[in-house]
Amino acid sequence: MKVTIKDIAKKAEVSISTVSLVLNNKPCRVAENTRKKIKQIAEKYNYKANQTARSLVTKKSNILGLIIPDIENLFFSALCKQIEEYCRSLGYAIIIVNSNDRKEDDHLLIDLLVSRGVDGIFITVSNESLLDSKSIQKTLSDFTIPYVMVDRVYPEIHCNKVYFDNELGAYLAIKKFVEYGHSKIACVGISEISKNGSYRVVGYRKAMEYFKLPVPESYILDGNYRFQGGYDCGLKLLDSDITAIFVCNDMMTLGLMRCFQEHNKRVPEDISIISYDNTLNPFMQGTEITSIDQNIEKLALTACDILIENIKQPNIEKKTICLEPHLIEKDSVKKL
Amino acid sequence: MKVTIKDIAKKAEVSISTVSLVLNNKPCRVAENTRKKIKQIAEKYNYKANQTARSLVTKKSNILGLIIPDIENLFFSALCKQIEEYCRSLGYAIIIVNSNDRKEDDHLLIDLLVSRGVDGIFITVSNESLLDSKSIQKTLSDFTIPYVMVDRVYPEIHCNKVYFDNELGAYLAIKKFVEYGHSKIACVGISEISKNGSYRVVGYRKAMEYFKLPVPESYILDGNYRFQGGYDCGLKLLDSDITAIFVCNDMMTLGLMRCFQEHNKRVPEDISIISYDNTLNPFMQGTEITSIDQNIEKLALTACDILIENIKQPNIEKKTICLEPHLIEKDSVKKL
Repeated sequence: MKVTIKDIAKKAEVSISTVSLVLNNKPCRVAENTRKKIKQIAEKYNYKANQTARSLVTKKSNILGLIIPDIENLFFSALCKQIEEYCRSLGYAIIIVNSNDRKEDDHLLIDLLVSRGVDGIFITVSNESLLDSKSIQKTLSDFTIPYVMVDRVYPEIHCNKVYFDNELGAYLAIKKFVEYGHSKIACVGISEISKNGSYRVVGYRKAMEYFKLPVPESYILDGNYRFQGGYDCGLKLLDSDITAIFVCNDMMTLGLMRCFQEHNKRVPEDISIISYDNTLNPFMQGTEITSIDQNIEKLALTACDILIENIKQPNIEKKTICLEPHLIEKDSVKKL
Repeated sequence: MKVTIKDIAKKAEVSISTVSLVLNNKPCRVAENTRKKIKQIAEKYNYKANQTARSLVTKKSNILGLIIPDIENLFFSALCKQIEEYCRSLGYAIIIVNSNDRKEDDHLLIDLLVSRGVDGIFITVSNESLLDSKSIQKTLSDFTIPYVMVDRVYPEIHCNKVYFDNELGAYLAIKKFVEYGHSKIACVGISEISKNGSYRVVGYRKAMEYFKLPVPESYILDGNYRFQGGYDCGLKLLDSDITAIFVCNDMMTLGLMRCFQEHNKRVPEDISIISYDNTLNPFMQGTEITSIDQNIEKLALTACDILIENIKQPNIEKKTICLEPHLIEKDSVKKL
């Protein structure tokens, strides 16, 4: 049985408000021995000040919600960890919920968090919501509490946003290939599954144009953002004349490399690769992968600062912050 | 500004309790047009029934706490996902918090969750707490709400527990090696960092004894449960006459394989390996690793069922459930 403040008051033979004042260390005229007695009783029955009750008075719960699409994805689990740690250091607890990249769950989880009385929400919407934006836009624009969109954002909604420049990431990859003498450069990405991925393909096209390199349609392959899709693209590229591949995420790179390894095509001796995400190298035996890296800590801290500022100042101007990715050079690009 | 039930009542020109009854769909004598009006106003101002207030009445928050040591670890992020999904399907929200494997944080997070009024707690304690068990035992035994220890448990505390049989996992690995003709089998594990890991080393010793195989002290190496420790053990094993290694977790296996690959020692042609955790194979190029697999979904669901049962029946007998790991056979063991 949970012990209530009422129980403590009864046992100490004082009023409820006296117990409240003493246990919250508020200034009050209570005799020292009464004070001591109340604290002893509270300790004996393991009474914890009830945040639920307190939050009804302060109208703040000091809880923030975090909606993410896939907690098992290395990118998002790292994001959770950073957000949770930083918010906790500032006195906020986090309710983390997982949408499994399903649109219905975005709506359901927003309602759940709002009904829990969270002070604000971090949301990385599902790819389904991102691609079919109308209904989630309606739900988000109805929000009466502060929120910040993280990593996956809508250009068309006016709200707090923090994300990475995906076109710049693609440009950095193509620039590195060009510096190393490559001109026949394929791109594995496309498909309508990932909005951020599609920006990377756009960035690839723009960069190729910038460097005046041809892009026959056969250079752009749909890898479905998964291992098997990457593997299948590898099969199509086995007999082509391309010398380099820009791959829009790490899962596809894994599939591609498995395919090449099975067909005795070596990276980077026979073909060069630049990947996106930079999560693979701890797992690599042999060649480490040159990759576009997104600083997840910076993403997390920026999102926290914006959200907490907005909670403290509800009428503050909404912020949009675009972060820059970086290229981390390893061994997967050959100089021609 | 958040709209309160008071604001709705004022706008609808009815009492607060009328609004409450209507919005919670409770039976009451309210005229249909008044009912409609209240619902319209609530919708217009995007009012959500306040769970915080409701939980003060029901004395249930329908929130469960989940304390894990490292959300970035693939094992724990999978555990989180399974617990979160299953609990949500049963109407519970989860507050996930991360202790970073620090003892002080275990205490702090327990207090935090209790003060948030959670109905129950899943706890995987830090390895620090597990090795120095006295103070956390005190905190846990003071608990007035139901909890379940998950994966890392204390034999000496009487409480709900779900965990895997680590000695059995080691036995399954040694048995496989023996079936394939190996007798000179090393174990990379030990160190006081991981309690579960130390049970695996005990299991290794017992299994070797069972099969009447010698265990010179040089066969047991301290890999520190990290990549670098595995790598360093690899260096020590390069010139030994052992033919097989049982490795107590996947991170050490990665380090070991990196070392062998750099020194042209092939797995399984030159040396056989069985690992623990079974998280590596999606990342492997070439040889996939035979490994002891722990069914995380089963761990999660069992923990949820026990905790929720205990919340509904506070006086029910505490349960201890030990789950069996399995060997997943891939390509890293050679038949001699």
